[in-house]
Amino acid sequence: MTTLQFSNGCSQSQKAYTSKDPPLFFVMMRFNIKNAILLLLLAIILMNGSDLNEKGFDIQGSEEIDCDINGEYVIGCRKEGEEVYIPFSFLHRYFEIYGKLSTYDGLEKFEWSHSYSRIYHPKSKYEPRGVYMYFENYNVEVRDRVKCVSATEGVPVSTQWESQGYYYPTQIAQFGLSHYSKNLTEPEPRRKLIDDGEKEVAKWIIPASATLNRIFIKELNTQAFEFKTSENYIEPIKLKMDHVLDFVMMVDILLNGNSSLTVVLQNRETKDAYFLHYITTDILITVQDSNIYHGIGMIPKWKRLTRDLIVDLQKGLSYASKDKSKHKIPRSKLKIININLRGSGAVDNLTLSSSEHIQQFYDAAEWFVKHQDKETGGWPIPVKRNLASGFLVLEKGWLSAMGQGQAISVLARAYSHSGGDQRYLHAAVNGLKPFRISSSEGGVLAIFLNKYNWYEEYPTKPPSFVLNGFIFSLLGLYDLANIAPIEYAEEAEYLYNDGIRTLKNILPFFDMGSVTSYDLRHFTLGIAPNLARWDYHATHVNQLLLLSTIENEPLFKSTAERWIGYMSGKRADHN
Amino acid sequence: MTTLQFSNGCSQSQKAYTSKDPPLFFVMMRFNIKNAILLLLLAIILMNGSDLNEKGFDIQGSEEIDCDINGEYVIGCRKEGEEVYIPFSFLHRYFEIYGKLSTYDGLEKFEWSHSYSRIYHPKSKYEPRGVYMYFENYNVEVRDRVKCVSATEGVPVSTQWESQGYYYPTQIAQFGLSHYSKNLTEPEPRRKLIDDGEKEVAKWIIPASATLNRIFIKELNTQAFEFKTSENYIEPIKLKMDHVLDFVMMVDILLNGNSSLTVVLQNRETKDAYFLHYITTDILITVQDSNIYHGIGMIPKWKRLTRDLIVDLQKGLSYASKDKSKHKIPRSKLKIININLRGSGAVDNLTLSSSEHIQQFYDAAEWFVKHQDKETGGWPIPVKRNLASGFLVLEKGWLSAMGQGQAISVLARAYSHSGGDQRYLHAAVNGLKPFRISSSEGGVLAIFLNKYNWYEEYPTKPPSFVLNGFIFSLLGLYDLANIAPIEYAEEAEYLYNDGIRTLKNILPFFDMGSVTSYDLRHFTLGIAPNLARWDYHATHVNQLLLLSTIENEPLFKSTAERWIGYMSGKRADHN
Repeated sequence: MTTLQFSNGCSQSQKAYTSKDPPLFFVMMRFNIKNAILLLLLAIILMNGSDLNEKGFDIQGSEEIDCDINGEYVIGCRKEGEEVYIPFSFLHRYFEIYGKLSTYDGLEKFEWSHSYSRIYHPKSKYEPRGVYMYFENYNVEVRDRVKCVSATEGVPVSTQWESQGYYYPTQIAQFGLSHYSKNLTEPEPRRKLIDDGEKEVAKWIIPASATLNRIFIKELNTQAFEFKTSENYIEPIKLKMDHVLDFVMMVDILLNGNSSLTVVLQNRETKDAYFLHYITTDILITVQDSNIYHGIGMIPKWKRLTRDLIVDLQKGLSYASKDKSKHKIPRSKLKIININLRGSGAVDNLTLSSSEHIQQFYDAAEWFVKHQDKETGGWPIPVKRNLASGFLVLEKGWLSAMGQGQAISVLARAYSHSGGDQRYLHAAVNGLKPFRISSSEGGVLAIFLNKYNWYEEYPTKPPSFVLNGFIFSLLGLYDLANIAPIEYAEEAEYLYNDGIRTLKNILPFFDMGSVTSYDLRHFTLGIAPNLARWDYHATHVNQLLLLSTIENEPLFKSTAERWIGYMSGKRADHN
Repeated sequence: MTTLQFSNGCSQSQKAYTSKDPPLFFVMMRFNIKNAILLLLLAIILMNGSDLNEKGFDIQGSEEIDCDINGEYVIGCRKEGEEVYIPFSFLHRYFEIYGKLSTYDGLEKFEWSHSYSRIYHPKSKYEPRGVYMYFENYNVEVRDRVKCVSATEGVPVSTQWESQGYYYPTQIAQFGLSHYSKNLTEPEPRRKLIDDGEKEVAKWIIPASATLNRIFIKELNTQAFEFKTSENYIEPIKLKMDHVLDFVMMVDILLNGNSSLTVVLQNRETKDAYFLHYITTDILITVQDSNIYHGIGMIPKWKRLTRDLIVDLQKGLSYASKDKSKHKIPRSKLKIININLRGSGAVDNLTLSSSEHIQQFYDAAEWFVKHQDKETGGWPIPVKRNLASGFLVLEKGWLSAMGQGQAISVLARAYSHSGGDQRYLHAAVNGLKPFRISSSEGGVLAIFLNKYNWYEEYPTKPPSFVLNGFIFSLLGLYDLANIAPIEYAEEAEYLYNDGIRTLKNILPFFDMGSVTSYDLRHFTLGIAPNLARWDYHATHVNQLLLLSTIENEPLFKSTAERWIGYMSGKRADHN
């Protein structure tokens, strides 16, 4: 028997259905003794494989009844005595609630869920150098809307609003913050050093047409090896492997033009092989049969490449496919069977690890240093965005307070973690500039009724007042205000306090009595409120709970508690 | 079998339950031929008077299953195949929806109602001299929270916030507006003239100790009669009657001290008699056994008394009773058997009618002329009001924009209907004063975020922004702006336009996505929204539909339409 699943989000283990007989016999026990013989005959029916046996008829007196819904349409219901029973499939559609049949210890029950999202109760005060919210649970790069992780930049490329792919600062920051947080919460990774040119050297198979020389690299002040294969590329330098489980590769590498490093993965069951090629082009990703190509850039220079090979494989497999989810191969079924080098270049510190979170965090931080518009302090978003009918379209190059704020959270942590690298500090402080500039002048500042300053995730005309993006921006300001040296912290602190004042005053407008509003477009456009779906609602709650650990503001706490109640069907009172 | 009723508001006729057998036999037809003999045996069971027979088991495969509600508690549900059925009694509590079993043409069905209130779609443009909204449907004085209709003032006395009773301007205005509207919508009343002192004279039974003389009253320029009974009051002047159906008495009367007019009503079934005494005191109402006393005031002067005798009887019967509804005697069971006069005085134009709406309307209008505070223009409310925890208590003497506005709607109509009585006009114009005075200074003006002027039904600190009261106040301003001569209309027009500007801008804040908010206390107090129960929600809709007939503002219309949808379970989209 298949299980019933109305839920989108709250999946849980479901066991096979087991039919229950006791209620039938319970009914029968109520017969008087004169009918005892009939029990036997009924048992024959029940053992006879008829419909009656298969389904049973446990409940007596259950009848069909039409149920007229608001005088608009009719559904089939059940009636027993004075109680009427409504089919859940209708309730699911009508109220958007969720339910599923599950079996625990052999007993089947139906689980009703008003919502599907999760609340993270902070265990301690939010710490700007610590875990960013609950982002240790995020895995940004595996999302379907991430085209791939760029091998030139080491950061994800979004396809959310433009299918060819673009760098989206908010997504890059979340990638960085999730790796930073995982680095703090996960155990120390397993690392296997494959070749560092001195202590650990691998058994590369060097064809006759190729060379591999161990040399000292002045630039890096370390021992490495340089290599060169024949110009027809047919015979690579090969390293045979039989490596499982830990699929994050880190390598310091210099590749000349038309050179490549290839990792060969094999499906241990099907024996299919997949070739992950890192090549000297600016192509983000391209795929031909089982060959997946990531470009590391055309300029020959030393770079540290950190690649989650599982992610690279996955993005490759789904690259040309419509159904992104179909091609997932479990990590446990894969192994690395070869690492190949072609062309010419040099290699050092080739490692395979269970993770390299802090490397990936720094990839994000470096991206923000490198791609900031020094004049405006912004990380412009290179695609246009149409938030909703009624708002003017945001043209290419718009800034987002959320993007700025989360970038600042990345940079403040990088400044602290690096022991004071000024590049990160200056980029973070420079990233505050758009908070003072009105949306209409290219900044992210909107003013609520000429009174309260608001930092816009989407600096639309008219303003949209997206709540979660605003609070994320406040977190960035808080992080910088707390991490920066005092002479740099002042502006962030001012902007943060001003934002908190706004939040204290207009937070109630997001309260819809049974759910929250994602933004205030109903106010600025005079349309229906844009209700937050449950994951955004949960984000609102999580953000308020976090703010409650750093702000002595009862409104945040009481509001969060009320909003948690909404997730299990509680509502504000009516008069 | 008793019928099931979860509904509070939407009652409809319900017929007896009829059991249905066919589905059982349908189930049986599916057995294979080998079991044919068992059909017979089953039939014996079914005819044997067992539980199985009485209830039937029409639905096969319906099983009991526990349903775990949000992990908080468990209810009993039903399962058939992959469908789970939820008991409506639970849904009623959880979602506050309504349902009832009804039978139409012998077929039982279950009627599901998301809400219980009514929308009045305006048939034409709102007309300030016409019906006030849908108030022709109101019957203010019969409400339980009306203690009685004062016989000195002819207007209702409220017990809503103080049990001893007080004059509540909003209630008085609604009384006036409902009678004004009924006067326009109901057919011409039946009237029976009992005694006008000249054309129609009644056959009063005058005891030897009493006198009754027909005389000309200079003050009224009409023929009437004066009377005097003995000082021991034992023998009244009597008029025997056998009068049914039309129970509104109108009389011009002058009563000296310790005199009275008594109407004797009889229950035609039980023969119980009830004595409605109109006496010369300032007592509102008092009751002793079957004697119900209304005071008409102590000063001997001519006054026109308009009394709905059914209302007076009802208020008397429920006066000392806890359960107000228990004592209702249907109009059809009553008759007037006597009208008695005691003491001394004079009488003219004694009439019994099916209604005297316009008289009752003028009683309200006169009350507003007489009881206005000439200096402030206000009709102060003589009881304190604690709207909700968090607001300062409104101390005795507070003004209400809704009371002012509806009083102005009464007075503007009285000015027009009377053919230009300046007393009404001046009172109405004077009633505008509090709209310019801040709540904190005794007026009704609140300002939304320093930008939008709002007229407060309850001028609380901080402001409460009650929506329906605000719109009612706008209607008063509109009425006066349209009825007053141009030199008086300007101020009302300014205030109206300013209020409409406010409404256009902040109406969306009352939209909760699936219902509306009664006020904005969530904003000013930082608490849960005070959701409007469905009758207030319907009032919001009705008000917007009405405003849409006079304002070319698409927001009012589109908002009203969306809010109508909420009443049948529609919701704003989530993202």
